[in-house]
Amino acid sequence: MLRTHDLGSLRAEHIGQTVTLAGWVARRRDHGGVAFLDLRDESGVSQIVVREEDVFHALRNEYVLQVTGTVSRRPGGNENPALATGGIEVVADDVVVLNEAAPLPFQLDEHVEVGEEARLKHRYLDLRRPSMQHNLRLRSEANRVARELLHREGFVEIETPTLTRSTPEGARDFLVPARLAPGSWYALPQSPQLFKQLLQVGGFEKYYQIARCYRDEDFRADRQPEFTQLDIEASFVDQDDIIALGEKIVSALWKLIDVEIPLPIQRMTYRDAMARFGSDKPDLRFGLELTEMTEFFKDTEFGVFKAPYVGAVVMPGGAAQPRRQLDAWQEWAKQRGAKGLAYVLVKDEGELTGPVAKNLTDTERAGLAGAVGAKPGDCIFFAAGEVNPSRALLGAARVEIGHRTGLINPADWAFVWIVDAPMFERAADAVASGDIAVGSGQWTAVHHAFTSPKPEFLDTFDKDPESALSYAYDIVCNGNEIGGGSIRIHQREVQERVFELMGLDKEAAQTKFGFLLEGFKFGAPPHGGIAIGWDRAVSLLAGVDSIRDVIAFPKSGGGYDPLTAAPAPITAQQRKEAGVDFRPEAKAEPQVVAPAPAK
Amino acid sequence: MLRTHDLGSLRAEHIGQTVTLAGWVARRRDHGGVAFLDLRDESGVSQIVVREEDVFHALRNEYVLQVTGTVSRRPGGNENPALATGGIEVVADDVVVLNEAAPLPFQLDEHVEVGEEARLKHRYLDLRRPSMQHNLRLRSEANRVARELLHREGFVEIETPTLTRSTPEGARDFLVPARLAPGSWYALPQSPQLFKQLLQVGGFEKYYQIARCYRDEDFRADRQPEFTQLDIEASFVDQDDIIALGEKIVSALWKLIDVEIPLPIQRMTYRDAMARFGSDKPDLRFGLELTEMTEFFKDTEFGVFKAPYVGAVVMPGGAAQPRRQLDAWQEWAKQRGAKGLAYVLVKDEGELTGPVAKNLTDTERAGLAGAVGAKPGDCIFFAAGEVNPSRALLGAARVEIGHRTGLINPADWAFVWIVDAPMFERAADAVASGDIAVGSGQWTAVHHAFTSPKPEFLDTFDKDPESALSYAYDIVCNGNEIGGGSIRIHQREVQERVFELMGLDKEAAQTKFGFLLEGFKFGAPPHGGIAIGWDRAVSLLAGVDSIRDVIAFPKSGGGYDPLTAAPAPITAQQRKEAGVDFRPEAKAEPQVVAPAPAK
Repeated sequence: MLRTHDLGSLRAEHIGQTVTLAGWVARRRDHGGVAFLDLRDESGVSQIVVREEDVFHALRNEYVLQVTGTVSRRPGGNENPALATGGIEVVADDVVVLNEAAPLPFQLDEHVEVGEEARLKHRYLDLRRPSMQHNLRLRSEANRVARELLHREGFVEIETPTLTRSTPEGARDFLVPARLAPGSWYALPQSPQLFKQLLQVGGFEKYYQIARCYRDEDFRADRQPEFTQLDIEASFVDQDDIIALGEKIVSALWKLIDVEIPLPIQRMTYRDAMARFGSDKPDLRFGLELTEMTEFFKDTEFGVFKAPYVGAVVMPGGAAQPRRQLDAWQEWAKQRGAKGLAYVLVKDEGELTGPVAKNLTDTERAGLAGAVGAKPGDCIFFAAGEVNPSRALLGAARVEIGHRTGLINPADWAFVWIVDAPMFERAADAVASGDIAVGSGQWTAVHHAFTSPKPEFLDTFDKDPESALSYAYDIVCNGNEIGGGSIRIHQREVQERVFELMGLDKEAAQTKFGFLLEGFKFGAPPHGGIAIGWDRAVSLLAGVDSIRDVIAFPKSGGGYDPLTAAPAPITAQQRKEAGVDFRPEAKAEPQVVAPAPAK
Repeated sequence: MLRTHDLGSLRAEHIGQTVTLAGWVARRRDHGGVAFLDLRDESGVSQIVVREEDVFHALRNEYVLQVTGTVSRRPGGNENPALATGGIEVVADDVVVLNEAAPLPFQLDEHVEVGEEARLKHRYLDLRRPSMQHNLRLRSEANRVARELLHREGFVEIETPTLTRSTPEGARDFLVPARLAPGSWYALPQSPQLFKQLLQVGGFEKYYQIARCYRDEDFRADRQPEFTQLDIEASFVDQDDIIALGEKIVSALWKLIDVEIPLPIQRMTYRDAMARFGSDKPDLRFGLELTEMTEFFKDTEFGVFKAPYVGAVVMPGGAAQPRRQLDAWQEWAKQRGAKGLAYVLVKDEGELTGPVAKNLTDTERAGLAGAVGAKPGDCIFFAAGEVNPSRALLGAARVEIGHRTGLINPADWAFVWIVDAPMFERAADAVASGDIAVGSGQWTAVHHAFTSPKPEFLDTFDKDPESALSYAYDIVCNGNEIGGGSIRIHQREVQERVFELMGLDKEAAQTKFGFLLEGFKFGAPPHGGIAIGWDRAVSLLAGVDSIRDVIAFPKSGGGYDPLTAAPAPITAQQRKEAGVDFRPEAKAEPQVVAPAPAK
């Protein structure tokens, strides 16, 4: 070692000892004749006293030094009680410059705001900042407590392959040309789903892995092309077993930040969550439930409210919003694809105003505030139209209201399991929300194609897909889905019926999932599992908004890495070797023939 | 849970209890009127007694059952003391078939030899076999003890990206087209090398990760396109620190199989290893060192021995080999690229025979056996020519002799650190041995381009690359390199000199490694690390020859996965979306233009 002690470990008990230290110059102060350095390593900071002016003057911030000196008591009045090492200083006998540092592109001081592009380009400097040091160490601890818990529960860690077969799971695969089999490609897995199910067929009844997953998406807000999940699967379990295990895990994670989560975590059906909160990931740190007003307005003469669904959400104190702000809500709704956001203001005397109010009958006006639970001074927002988009709009308005009105206490934690999700949704809706439908059918899986129906829908799910509920469960924290799983289908015949409903004929199912169906022939046990989105879970623990703040080297928008400038062009030689442009002989399958290059 | 007890947990204390069990039918025996099942789960096996003939007759091996019944004492004489559950049996009240099983493509019995292709195609069945269950559980334990040790030592686990920039490290990169940046590609990392060094620049002074790595190689014998290493890097360390840490790790791993490795592990210089054992990964479970005979034969009249190097290795008892076997040695040598393997047989009376013997002078014949330490009955093998290939041939012969003569005790463990490796080798030699030279220079790095010279060669390594030794260290177990590392270069100027010697000019170095050189400008600390080849290390622990036996879903030859049939053709739609055939506008860089598809 180039040091005898860590900088953060020095205490009064070391006074009089000769020590050798190594670290970075965090701060330097010249008092004329005597100069002070704050020297920093990952354990902390100690004050170094340098008496040689010429030695001191050569030093700059972030120089890497090896200092040998004597630990001394700081002179009276110079102690720094805020610092663990604040009672001592080290009087340097020898200062060796291990490396120099050019002036930094940005300061490491936590209080200086730095643009994210600069932070990512010089990530090795950004990582020296206390917040990133904290975040990544917390992530390492999260890994550790989860693994220790799973080990205690008898789980076995197994690695699954990442150069594998393209297995559609609702997003695009990243592809890798196989040089040794020109014209053939590997795919990077969207999750270890099929492999972990095959491990159950293989008799590994309790599997886990902190797994890298890949989705070639259009990089919505806070997504990364590669991400991490704590991936779990077990045999001979039911939904309650996996939910109990999931609760142990989040409980252990939140203990890392001294939060005790009351167990069991409440459960809410998907149907209830949509009806009451307009979301399958409701933020339960505050109330403000939606009120369905379809019945209330069933005889209305107001054209807008003559709709299959009318709902409302109240903004406490919202009647005081100036016109400009109410207009902004319309813009906000339009950006979400709605026509606008109808509203009624409840004035202090209970009088209703705003453009909608005058379209209502006296009876409607008289009963409205009471029906939605609005008080004088509140604003009532409405959505009317098809059930799902209307609820989604109100649900989003609810969260926005929660943030704007300070109803959300950032120190609160609200967990909920969302259970009994529908098995299927219309493929058109899935595609509209950015997913890739696996088959060509009218219906596609809400969770994924391997999710078991609840027993009461086993016989009917393919005759009445709209009603079928699945054994799926998501865990939601403060409005973020941090994990989800399901009891899987383990019977070949049931799996085939699901594929068929999704528009995968026998041949297509065989091509894409033949190895799973084959595996199910030889004694597949009942099984289920869960995956916890590790980046999101740790970002919540760390109290940061972006998952990029808990990833050492994340991509920025569009999957670009400002540090290495990846992705990058390849050479003609690399392209040739990779076999990308291999053309099979005439008799080859048409689908492996490269299309003519686009003009 | 679908069971109340694990099958392997039932004991006499459970007698009289009603239990529910779940598992696979391992064996069935019909005794007429009463039938017995061995039911297996991952914990073990219990005997189930089924009295209903029709229930029993419907069952087949590997059916998945849920059995409810009463634990009973086995009738006197029927106990099986070899089985932990051998004192009890469970009399079934209810047998539910959870899933059926078609006849298996191969038997799970450990003693039935099954071809590897079949094992991999139906890996989910192969995984049920006791050996694979053992191997993967051992691997999980290896992960655990390594992580626990590194945690105690203050190491932080950090994930590094796998969609990154192509960074040549001696093999080909796997490439991934970036759909959102058509014409640009990610590369899968050959190791986290650059990122772990940048983490040191970022102040994470103790990093580790069990990391997936990728090398697009021509699949020599026992390689996988994706493999795993325990990857470690630390700051302010010297070679002894990393070696001591490496010893703690292997010591903890081998304790898993109840082997106490005496520490410290011996060290041997690269030079000594090559001279004495003809290998940089000598198997030290046996002696049989090479003898250099160049001096001995310096005045020889035998043309073959008029060479820059003559060396010998003794095969004890080898004089008794029939002519056919001695001829086979010639073939063996030719397959390794040598002309043959000269030999002299020492007969029982000390007389020397064989084709070489008659070419030797009387003096040579008189001194030969003594010089090489051969006894009557031994065979002396010779290699003559250039030093390196001659030693390599003798080293390989030595290992072959060790195996053939039973000199190697398979229960032995012999560890050694190989230190002081040369910094550079001739690029032509590296390419000849299958590596890819990083630059276009005459010299390339033996370890990798980031390896620090030992201090005494810091000024001279680029003037006299042949003599320069590096701070590199490999750990070898029974002739297998299981890990290797080095103290790294941390000074930009030194790194640039290495790149230049390797034939990377400033511009090329900037293109390929600019982000590392940039990082070195801002206070890079002295650092070093190690990586342990996890697949190989675990395969040694498990006592299996192939790393495929410690990987859940490995590839077979050529990178093919018999289970999923990956890699596979992609659709024209996938190809189009991936942007593989994107053609940039005319002004683009020539190297991103796709070559015309091969005819």
